[in-house]
Amino acid sequence: MSSAFKPEQARIPPALALPTPPLNKAISFPLFTFKIGLCQLTVTPDKERNIKHARKAIEDAAQKGAQLVVLPEIWNSPYSNDSFPVYAEDIDAGHDASPSTAMLAEVSVQMKIVIVGGSIPERCGDKLYNTCCVFGTDGKLKAKHRKIHLFDIDIPGKITFTESKTLTAGETPTIVDTGICHDISFQELAMIYASRGAHLLCYPGAFNMTTGPLHWELLQRASSFGLASINGLFLVLVLAGLTSTLLVRAVDNQLYVATCSPARDAGAGYVAWGHSTLVGPFGEMIATTEHDEDIIIAEIDYSVLEQRRTNLPLPKQRRGDLYRLIDIQRRE
Amino acid sequence: MSSAFKPEQARIPPALALPTPPLNKAISFPLFTFKIGLCQLTVTPDKERNIKHARKAIEDAAQKGAQLVVLPEIWNSPYSNDSFPVYAEDIDAGHDASPSTAMLAEVSVQMKIVIVGGSIPERCGDKLYNTCCVFGTDGKLKAKHRKIHLFDIDIPGKITFTESKTLTAGETPTIVDTGICHDISFQELAMIYASRGAHLLCYPGAFNMTTGPLHWELLQRASSFGLASINGLFLVLVLAGLTSTLLVRAVDNQLYVATCSPARDAGAGYVAWGHSTLVGPFGEMIATTEHDEDIIIAEIDYSVLEQRRTNLPLPKQRRGDLYRLIDIQRRE
Repeated sequence: MSSAFKPEQARIPPALALPTPPLNKAISFPLFTFKIGLCQLTVTPDKERNIKHARKAIEDAAQKGAQLVVLPEIWNSPYSNDSFPVYAEDIDAGHDASPSTAMLAEVSVQMKIVIVGGSIPERCGDKLYNTCCVFGTDGKLKAKHRKIHLFDIDIPGKITFTESKTLTAGETPTIVDTGICHDISFQELAMIYASRGAHLLCYPGAFNMTTGPLHWELLQRASSFGLASINGLFLVLVLAGLTSTLLVRAVDNQLYVATCSPARDAGAGYVAWGHSTLVGPFGEMIATTEHDEDIIIAEIDYSVLEQRRTNLPLPKQRRGDLYRLIDIQRRE
Repeated sequence: MSSAFKPEQARIPPALALPTPPLNKAISFPLFTFKIGLCQLTVTPDKERNIKHARKAIEDAAQKGAQLVVLPEIWNSPYSNDSFPVYAEDIDAGHDASPSTAMLAEVSVQMKIVIVGGSIPERCGDKLYNTCCVFGTDGKLKAKHRKIHLFDIDIPGKITFTESKTLTAGETPTIVDTGICHDISFQELAMIYASRGAHLLCYPGAFNMTTGPLHWELLQRASSFGLASINGLFLVLVLAGLTSTLLVRAVDNQLYVATCSPARDAGAGYVAWGHSTLVGPFGEMIATTEHDEDIIIAEIDYSVLEQRRTNLPLPKQRRGDLYRLIDIQRRE
């Protein structure tokens, strides 16, 4: 390709090279390959039960060999604007003020694993956030990510959900040794993470934006027919589009994408889609599940990323002479 | 959403509002709804036959009600670096120097349709391009788009194709009444087209990048198993990923996406994937086909775009405070 195309200018600042994976100190060689565990959990109105239940699932995943364990979005509380203020915890205060993250800290050091703790409603001053905490093998909080793009949708008479009614949006993309983000609808965020050298995007998600039996019925209909009428089209997106979105985020950005959803509970106010999935950089679905509670264990091999980027060098083929994506916070 | 998020700054220059669809002069009201025809054609080494055959398919599609007809990538020539120089035409000279586009001009006015003429190898001076011509109902050339991102891939021992060996890349995104582009691997281009107010992206594509029986076999294998080994993973992308990519480009950018492929000919040097498809802005697959020759007729309703953008106002939810995409040529 001619350098007149300025591929290196397609990202501002220029994309970072894929960093060498971190050392696994226990075995002192680079950790190219490891097992990830995706815990697709049932969630109930009983917070204490949710915490105990999540702990058990994390321990199970670790015993099955997972070194990185991912939980779903809002795993300690029902997914509703009514519940968020009631179940919210003060993560910064910790301990008794945040029993959910206290458990994550404890079990991560106990099992010597990294935990991408899905998300819980977080209270900070008079604001609420949808927040994901990452704990290292030493039980320390490595990162706290507040959902950046709140989910506000309004299809009159069909689906209305307004996260911004109770929640405040986060202000910063978050990248840790294991890159993590939400906000899967926004391709820009995935592009920025890739440019920052992320190997893996984690999207803990409550993938179904429906709030009652009407939508559940629509979901069923969409599921049966593959296509639905215009009224049901949003559901087609949920069904057909979500897996596709994971796949395309992975292929476009040449990295791994993991999602973790709550298990489906048809009796709940909010019915989750399930189908937690790991997709590789070739768009290959490495592991997935149905909508019931499940623990997925799958292997991630970071050396595949190098291979993918050598075979099909998209970064070198970009046209910085035609378009540029600015990562504002990294530029500052 | 707080204006502190500067959603209007997520595109530079700011995204244009979705333009009102053009008037249909014959019936004098805005052309919100119309039929599109995707001609998935067999292509042979006999150029004269290819031109006659394409003409027949376009006429068939128009007789079935299509007002916009789309042809595949490289429909007048085999898809190979050896063939491109031999089959290339001087589009600017026209007439006898370009029998393929002369036919398109003739049939568009004859049938009173718009034709997105897939692509043919174009000779311009000492350079060759992979070029798509759009003809209006008056038979005039409305736009000429040269493929911007050439396809260079190298998986040693598996797949190697180097378009840049013979072709030169185009320099300009192309937008016409019916927005058109290639280069589906590059999300930035779709984002730019959406920002420029495109209702529909057309990707004429020879979707399979394989060059011989080995790859055909791999394709078959991938097709049978859904997933394949790492050696076959690229094929999984072709099979599973392409449809997903269409779908996600449509959903991310909230517009229609149409693709048109050559039909599959297992005996050809280059075996096409087929599966021409129209996807709507909710990620719904409106119409698709298998790999044999076929004409797809489907309805496009531009008013659905407004509805989709009202229901889920992604442009208002973007975070111009975190990322910005610059459309270089529109800014100049």
